[in-house]
Amino acid sequence: MTISSQPAKASPDRRADKARNEADNPSSLVVRFGADEPLALDSGSQLRDWQVAYQTYGELNEEKSNVVLICHALTGDQHVANVHPVTGKPGWWERMVGPGKPIDTRRYFVICPNVLGGCMGTTGPASTNPATGRPYGLDLPVLTIGDMVRAQAMLLDRLGIGKILGVVGGSMGGMQVLQWAVAYPDRVLSAIPIAAGARHSSQNIAFHEVGRQAVMADPDWQGGKYLELGTSPRKGLAVARMAGHITYMSDQALHRKFGRNLQDRDKRTFTFDADFQIESYIRHQGSTFVDRFDANSYLYVTRAMDYFDIAADHDGRLANAFLDCKTRFCVVSFTSDWLFPTSESRAVVKALNAGGASVSFVEIATSAGHDSFLLEEPELDATIRGFLAAVARDHNVT
Amino acid sequence: MTISSQPAKASPDRRADKARNEADNPSSLVVRFGADEPLALDSGSQLRDWQVAYQTYGELNEEKSNVVLICHALTGDQHVANVHPVTGKPGWWERMVGPGKPIDTRRYFVICPNVLGGCMGTTGPASTNPATGRPYGLDLPVLTIGDMVRAQAMLLDRLGIGKILGVVGGSMGGMQVLQWAVAYPDRVLSAIPIAAGARHSSQNIAFHEVGRQAVMADPDWQGGKYLELGTSPRKGLAVARMAGHITYMSDQALHRKFGRNLQDRDKRTFTFDADFQIESYIRHQGSTFVDRFDANSYLYVTRAMDYFDIAADHDGRLANAFLDCKTRFCVVSFTSDWLFPTSESRAVVKALNAGGASVSFVEIATSAGHDSFLLEEPELDATIRGFLAAVARDHNVT
Repeated sequence: MTISSQPAKASPDRRADKARNEADNPSSLVVRFGADEPLALDSGSQLRDWQVAYQTYGELNEEKSNVVLICHALTGDQHVANVHPVTGKPGWWERMVGPGKPIDTRRYFVICPNVLGGCMGTTGPASTNPATGRPYGLDLPVLTIGDMVRAQAMLLDRLGIGKILGVVGGSMGGMQVLQWAVAYPDRVLSAIPIAAGARHSSQNIAFHEVGRQAVMADPDWQGGKYLELGTSPRKGLAVARMAGHITYMSDQALHRKFGRNLQDRDKRTFTFDADFQIESYIRHQGSTFVDRFDANSYLYVTRAMDYFDIAADHDGRLANAFLDCKTRFCVVSFTSDWLFPTSESRAVVKALNAGGASVSFVEIATSAGHDSFLLEEPELDATIRGFLAAVARDHNVT
Repeated sequence: MTISSQPAKASPDRRADKARNEADNPSSLVVRFGADEPLALDSGSQLRDWQVAYQTYGELNEEKSNVVLICHALTGDQHVANVHPVTGKPGWWERMVGPGKPIDTRRYFVICPNVLGGCMGTTGPASTNPATGRPYGLDLPVLTIGDMVRAQAMLLDRLGIGKILGVVGGSMGGMQVLQWAVAYPDRVLSAIPIAAGARHSSQNIAFHEVGRQAVMADPDWQGGKYLELGTSPRKGLAVARMAGHITYMSDQALHRKFGRNLQDRDKRTFTFDADFQIESYIRHQGSTFVDRFDANSYLYVTRAMDYFDIAADHDGRLANAFLDCKTRFCVVSFTSDWLFPTSESRAVVKALNAGGASVSFVEIATSAGHDSFLLEEPELDATIRGFLAAVARDHNVT
């Protein structure tokens, strides 16, 4: 595993340069697929000369029976439990993954691939198009969650891994988890979709469309050709991220954390400065995001989420997707998640039950909102630890 | 009352020109205040040579005792119940105001002023700054809900109107209603704040900040000087409106109205076109808004809402604002409103009760979200009709 250590305080410009390099030459493991190993896409197109960047933790056992696949969310990446090569910050799920952690790397071999369409080394719009030698930009075909999962399956094939002990992920990661179980039911022994659903709702599509319009409204987006032209739609992407970020937190969490507190001042300034802490916070979320994420990737990955609708792919009936499903499920939702409310998880559970699947359903009471899966949440830790241990026992993984 | 009749289908460019003219020369009644009648602002500044544009419906009775003041919401204006001079569309509350309607213009004299900071004829950033002869832009002082209400009080003074039978408004209109009762308790006989609260929440401030950042990110905003420079931050303002509009509807309403239905096509196009009806809908909301609304007004009016916090102005205790309040209240909320949830209205009711005020509280069960006050909602109609009639009876208004 190659992870170059990075200075923790690279300047924004240096970070942006570094982020651009990651697209073709990631600071992680990478598997390249040649012209003879095309990836068939749901759009009908094919990708040739493509690659998947991924990270691993722990050791693969001799039987190759201890694999836990982690699927990341919209703005996540493969750097689950190591210092991030661009930001210098800890991995996004350090709490969950490591020796003695709920996903215990002394026991499991953990793999996390960067998603197709991403910008951290798996083929995406920032990657070099082998046909032109220039970044794909909008020449990359529009992708789906199904395409992401198909790419991951080809990665595991290449690594000689057949069955997966558990597939785990939150938000868009949870969509991939469900798609894995639907597309490869014999391969997935257990599945933990967290804070997700079997489709993207109308409201969710609307928020994504706001983000995309914000990016595309930025003249520096240049019709998607900004990498070639040396510009960067930073302002548009920052607005997109700000709008998105609000949806990841609950009203209560924002109230508790920021309330109407003023930022480093005693009274209102009667200007358009960030008087309130919440303003300063979301501006910061926007401005740091653009240093590590590609604007076109934001378009592609949000679009893949919008297109996700398992029922629609199965004659309009979600239960049809899970008929005779042997995968054991643990579906997790959070009470204060308004982006993927419990009702969406419950619909999945209902369909799984209708298909006769083995399913546990855990609704965790928390006021932290959608992003709870990324935060300190002992009940989530215990749920994942216990469920994976039970599955491992059933399959004689020690 | 001067209302010029407008062609219903003016082109967007003509509509934009028309909208710009409204700022100084509104298609409605207008009262101008000279240099000797300054408006004192909460920021400490004063406005001189300012004006209030307003619309009236019905007849003022001899005792001047039948006045109903309507306060409009963020993107509303004084054109409550007449054809809009810019868009050619019906007034925004035609359902509620008119002969025989819940706010019956055969009985009440209805006044609706455009808010201070607006763009339809009351002084705002698009108005000509008398000191320079150019549009104010960001040279206009930042305003508050208190300033808006103070300006309205000066309008009523000028019209020789003392007491107001009822002040009614939804959303930001409801904030003004509350502010009226707090600032002029002896003048307001009854108050109907709908879908509002006594402060703007952290989440609400965050959504407004996204909108402002979207406007200011548009290079055509030009630091606020776009009117002088002949540009228009249409894309930025459209994104702001899109983000805002999502918050005005409930998840259920969006699901019922649009679901995941495709727009004029049988299947996904695998592009970034508006495949889904919801995408097409919010794009339309964004693009039509910019023809009738000034981008700087959007900044000023959202800022005024963010600054609104009655408790903070009363030693941190909301009840202090309503001590010995003689105004009779009817507080209305909607179950599916997540922008101003019922809990915000309940906090107002609690404070009113603590102050010994007379208060009815009506929580209307609807799945339509925050914008319910603008929609067909018979329970709201009956509530307003009945409450106003009772107040009128108490005060011998026939």
